[in-house]
Amino acid sequence: MINKKYKEMTGKGSVIREFFTYSNQKAKEIGAENVFDFSIGNPSVPTPAEFTDYMIELLQTQNPVSLHGYSPSLGIDSTRQAVADSLNQRFGMNYTMKHIFMTTGAAGAIAHAVRCVVKDGDEVLTFAPYFPEYVPYIEGTGAHLTIVPADIDTFQINFDELEKAMNPNVSAILVNSPNNPSGIVYSTDTIKKLATLMEKKQEEYGHDIYLISDEPYREIVFTEDSPFISKYYDNSICCYSFSKSVSLPGERIGYVAVNPNCKDAELIILMCGQISRFTGHNCPPSIIQLGIEKILNMTSDLSIYEENKNILYKELTRIGYHIVEPGGTFYMFPRSLIADANEFCWKAANELNLIIVPGDSFNCPGHFRISYCVTTDKVKRSIPLFEKLYNMYN
Amino acid sequence: MINKKYKEMTGKGSVIREFFTYSNQKAKEIGAENVFDFSIGNPSVPTPAEFTDYMIELLQTQNPVSLHGYSPSLGIDSTRQAVADSLNQRFGMNYTMKHIFMTTGAAGAIAHAVRCVVKDGDEVLTFAPYFPEYVPYIEGTGAHLTIVPADIDTFQINFDELEKAMNPNVSAILVNSPNNPSGIVYSTDTIKKLATLMEKKQEEYGHDIYLISDEPYREIVFTEDSPFISKYYDNSICCYSFSKSVSLPGERIGYVAVNPNCKDAELIILMCGQISRFTGHNCPPSIIQLGIEKILNMTSDLSIYEENKNILYKELTRIGYHIVEPGGTFYMFPRSLIADANEFCWKAANELNLIIVPGDSFNCPGHFRISYCVTTDKVKRSIPLFEKLYNMYN
Repeated sequence: MINKKYKEMTGKGSVIREFFTYSNQKAKEIGAENVFDFSIGNPSVPTPAEFTDYMIELLQTQNPVSLHGYSPSLGIDSTRQAVADSLNQRFGMNYTMKHIFMTTGAAGAIAHAVRCVVKDGDEVLTFAPYFPEYVPYIEGTGAHLTIVPADIDTFQINFDELEKAMNPNVSAILVNSPNNPSGIVYSTDTIKKLATLMEKKQEEYGHDIYLISDEPYREIVFTEDSPFISKYYDNSICCYSFSKSVSLPGERIGYVAVNPNCKDAELIILMCGQISRFTGHNCPPSIIQLGIEKILNMTSDLSIYEENKNILYKELTRIGYHIVEPGGTFYMFPRSLIADANEFCWKAANELNLIIVPGDSFNCPGHFRISYCVTTDKVKRSIPLFEKLYNMYN
Repeated sequence: MINKKYKEMTGKGSVIREFFTYSNQKAKEIGAENVFDFSIGNPSVPTPAEFTDYMIELLQTQNPVSLHGYSPSLGIDSTRQAVADSLNQRFGMNYTMKHIFMTTGAAGAIAHAVRCVVKDGDEVLTFAPYFPEYVPYIEGTGAHLTIVPADIDTFQINFDELEKAMNPNVSAILVNSPNNPSGIVYSTDTIKKLATLMEKKQEEYGHDIYLISDEPYREIVFTEDSPFISKYYDNSICCYSFSKSVSLPGERIGYVAVNPNCKDAELIILMCGQISRFTGHNCPPSIIQLGIEKILNMTSDLSIYEENKNILYKELTRIGYHIVEPGGTFYMFPRSLIADANEFCWKAANELNLIIVPGDSFNCPGHFRISYCVTTDKVKRSIPLFEKLYNMYN
C-alpha cells in the first residue's frame, strides 16, 4: 500500500545535493580548507545579536506556559502587526495584520499562497532560471508549472516569450527577485512592464491573475534599483523568508503578505489558515515568531556578500568568463565554457576541488551557479582555480 | 480564481472555537475568575526547567550560523538518534535514527505518515469519538476517513463495528490513545485484539494495513495498563507531539517513528522527506529540535491533571453524571443530560458561565467534553455549577 509517487521520488537525488555530498567527502579526505565549495546557499554570517539577546530575554522572563502556548492559526497578533508595520515603514505600503499570515519560511508561504489562487489544472508561470523546488511546490497544489525561457543576456523577464506563454488557464505568475541562481534584481522598468501586461491579460481573460513574489533575498541587494514588487500590482502576494537576510534558515520562519489593494486580500489570509489544516503545516513556532519581532528592520552584516561578488565578478570577467553582474543575493550565474555544464562542473570538482553547480538544475543549461556565501579568503584563493579551469578550455 | 474549496471553509467555524470565543467575551465582561472554561486542551503546567535552561545555553554558547542553520530534511541526526534511544529505553523497542522523521507536531506527523501509505480513494478508519481535525488531515491526503462507531460503555474499540467496517480499500487504521476527548487509554487486551484482527485482514486482502497511532498524550496516564502501541503490530507508525507531556504546544515539534519490524520502515522515512516538498512543511526549527533532546525522558509536572481528574470524577459521579473514568489525558467525556448535547452545553455556558463542549464535534453525540487542564481551585469551584446544571434536568 506504499504510495508509489513518493516512493519513486526517493530514488532521485538532486544534482546540487550530489555536488555537495562529493564536496563533503573530499573535505574529509584532503581537509575542508582545500575544497572550494560554492554549491550551497547557506548564509555565512551570524543573525543579528539582537535576535539572540531577545530570545534569551523571552526564555528568562516570560511565563513558559504562555511563551510556548499555541499561536493563533494565522500567527501571533503582535507579530503579524509588527510585520505589517515594518513593510509599511520601509516600502510605503498600507498592510494591516489582516493581510499577514505567518508561515514556516518561504516554502510554507508559497505552498499556501498558490493553493489560495489556483485550482486543479490551472497553470502557474515562472521564468528560467528558477529554484528547482518550485516544481514540487507548484505541482503539489494540483496546478501545472509552465516555464518561460530565460533572457540570458540580462536575466530580466523575456517579455516576448511571456506573451507567447500567456493563456486563459494562467492563474498566477511566480517571480523571484533578487533571483536564485542568477543574482539578478528585476528593475522597476521590468516590474512595471510585467504589471501592465498582467493587467491587460486580466481584462482580456476576464479573471484575476495573481503575482506571487518569492522574496527571501529582498534585503541582499547591491543595486539602487530594487523595487518592492507588490507596490506595482494590486493582485500581488509577497512570500517572505527570514532565512537569508537575517541568517535564520533552520528556524523556518516567514510570511505571506497580500496587497491590501487586492479585493480578496483578507479572504486569502483566512484561506491560508484553512489550507494549513490539510497540509499539517500549522503555525511557525511561537518563540520564533516573537523573536523575529525584534529584528524586522535589521539584517545580518551583509557586506561580505557584496565584497565577494565584487571580487568574483571583477576577476572572473578579467579571466574571460561571461557573467551578467548580480544586483543582489549571494549567487552569480556565469556561462559554462562548454555546452554541457554538468560535465564542466564535474571537471571543476574532480580536477580542481572547485565545487560549482550546473545551470541545468535551474532549467537554464549552459550556465553554472557560484554560491559565494563563503569567506572572502576562500573567494580570493579560488581565483587561480577559476583561471586554471578557464585555461583548460581556451 | 480564488480556490472555492478553501474559500467555503473560511465560513465554517469550529463549534469548540465558538464556545472558546464566547468564554473569552464573557471573561472580559465579568472577569476571568468567574468563567469556568473547560473548552480548550492547552497544557496549564510549565515545560521542564531543563528545556528553558538548555535553550538559553544553546543561544549563549553555540555559533549562531550553525545553531540556526538548515536542518537535514529528515531532521537533525543527533535529535533523531536521541528520540530513537529514548523510545528504546522506555519501551524496549529497537528504533535507529533511520526510523525517525522530525515533524512540526502530531499534525505534521499524521500528514506525512498517512500520505506514505495511502493513495487517492483509499480508506482510513478511525474510531468515534475522535479529534475533529482528523477529517481535514485525512481528506487532505486524497483518502477517505471512515468512522467506526463508539463503544460508549467503555470507549475501548467496538470490534463488532470494526469488523463490519473492514474492507479491502482500508489501507490504514488511525488510533488515538490516550484519547481526546474520552480520556480513555486502550488496554493491552484491546491493542492485542486489534493487532490480531489487522494481521488476519492483511492476509485476507493480500496487502499491508498500517496502524497509525496518534500519541500526544502518551505520558499523561493515570493507569497501570498503558501499552506502547507500536510494540504489538509490525506495520505501525507512531505519530508523536511534544505539545502536551512537556507543554510545548506552540513550538510545533513532534516526530514520526516507524516500527523497525515494518519491512518498508526506512523507505517510509525517506518518503516523508519527499512529501514535505509538496506540502511546504520542511523540518521543525533547528533550535527546537536541539532543545527537546534534553527532555526526551522527562515530562512537565503532570500531577495536577490526575488530581483534577480525581476530583471531577468523584464529584460528578456523586452528583449523578455518567462518566467512563479516564485513564489519561486532561479530558473526560460524560454523558449529556439531554440528547442534544449542543443545547445542553449552551445552557451551561449561558446560565452558569460553565464552558464545556458538545460531543457532536467529536462525532459522538449525547456527550460533552471537559478539558480539565485548569487550576485545581477552578475545578473545585466548578463542582456546585455542575450540580446546578444537573438539577436543572433532574
